[in-house]
Amino acid sequence: MPSSFKKNPRNTVRRLPSRGAYDRETIYGILDAGFLCHAGFTVDGQPFVIPTAYGREGDKLFFHGSIKSRMMLELGAQIPVCVTVTLLDGVVLARSAFHHSMNYRSVVLFGQARELVEPEEKDKALYCISEQILPGRWAEVRGPNANELAATSVLEMTIDEASAKIRTGGPKDDQEDYDLPIWAGVLPVQSVYQIPEPDPLLKESLEVSPSVLNAIAKQSG
Amino acid sequence: MPSSFKKNPRNTVRRLPSRGAYDRETIYGILDAGFLCHAGFTVDGQPFVIPTAYGREGDKLFFHGSIKSRMMLELGAQIPVCVTVTLLDGVVLARSAFHHSMNYRSVVLFGQARELVEPEEKDKALYCISEQILPGRWAEVRGPNANELAATSVLEMTIDEASAKIRTGGPKDDQEDYDLPIWAGVLPVQSVYQIPEPDPLLKESLEVSPSVLNAIAKQSG
Repeated sequence: MPSSFKKNPRNTVRRLPSRGAYDRETIYGILDAGFLCHAGFTVDGQPFVIPTAYGREGDKLFFHGSIKSRMMLELGAQIPVCVTVTLLDGVVLARSAFHHSMNYRSVVLFGQARELVEPEEKDKALYCISEQILPGRWAEVRGPNANELAATSVLEMTIDEASAKIRTGGPKDDQEDYDLPIWAGVLPVQSVYQIPEPDPLLKESLEVSPSVLNAIAKQSG
Repeated sequence: MPSSFKKNPRNTVRRLPSRGAYDRETIYGILDAGFLCHAGFTVDGQPFVIPTAYGREGDKLFFHGSIKSRMMLELGAQIPVCVTVTLLDGVVLARSAFHHSMNYRSVVLFGQARELVEPEEKDKALYCISEQILPGRWAEVRGPNANELAATSVLEMTIDEASAKIRTGGPKDDQEDYDLPIWAGVLPVQSVYQIPEPDPLLKESLEVSPSVLNAIAKQSG
């Protein structure tokens, strides 16, 4: 597998090209730091953008949903799909309104999805999605039975083209604005797990699962 | 203005319709709790999904970008656009893999965008976006000059159709799974501002701006 995706008209970052990246290490690093994407597809000329969870393995992305879901039905028909993952890292506060910006890591993927039909394939893909969201959870819970697998549509998208766009660091102001008495800097933003809320129907003797404790420990450390 | 958007084939929540909402109060409440959306549009049959900041006023959404931006050029040509805002509130952990879910508030909007050309209109829209991201910041900084306004493309999208989809609360497990010795509940997720990082080029005497302090104070309740 080559280490970078080829630059094509479709995936080339045109605006501020210095922020663009095409290597798998960067792109997969961003994908692996998230689990929520926005999937875009077109039906009769009308674009739809739907948020959904994903799992990644190699150049494949997996999605799941109800077999009744519109997105699953449309995407499973191997139409062009654009999948975008955005991790917001901060609001960049400059001395001028014009130079305000965001720090972020984003990835835009192009490809097509196909529906997985074999129960073993579906099970493996669901495991991948579950591990992406909360590593270790799958092993703690009751796995899907045949009926549940049949009621779940699972899609596999092959990533044909990809690009990342990243901004880091402080504001860049115009030279003459540095003398203005205006505070400037970055207001960092982070997606943070809060204290777990037990199901009211939980048996009192059960302690919070290791997968949950690990996820919380990982973010503070 | 009617209090709800009309349900049409395009915006109707088909999967788990009980999670769908069409009233402006719900939809605008979600929009006003965020400032980052994913805008979807189609060029020659290929969907693109691009993250961007927005501001809302009434039934209008504003976007901005460089006049050289592909998205701005495409969207300004009044093509159909789908704008999605997703606020992730938690990971829902059930006793079975199948019943895992997310708590979220999301909005899907359909409409078209047009480019604003009058400098006063553009300035007003940029103010709206700025206030959406960080209320009060606009008044603290140097506003855009004529050159900056000319270099900025500003789009106004009229929301024609909209729907919200919301999930809250704990897991719903199958009756026979409640006896399993598996911790279940919700792992809440929140987007949290961290400690502001001053620009290294900042004059030492400047204190953090009120807009920043207010945003941090607001999130801690």
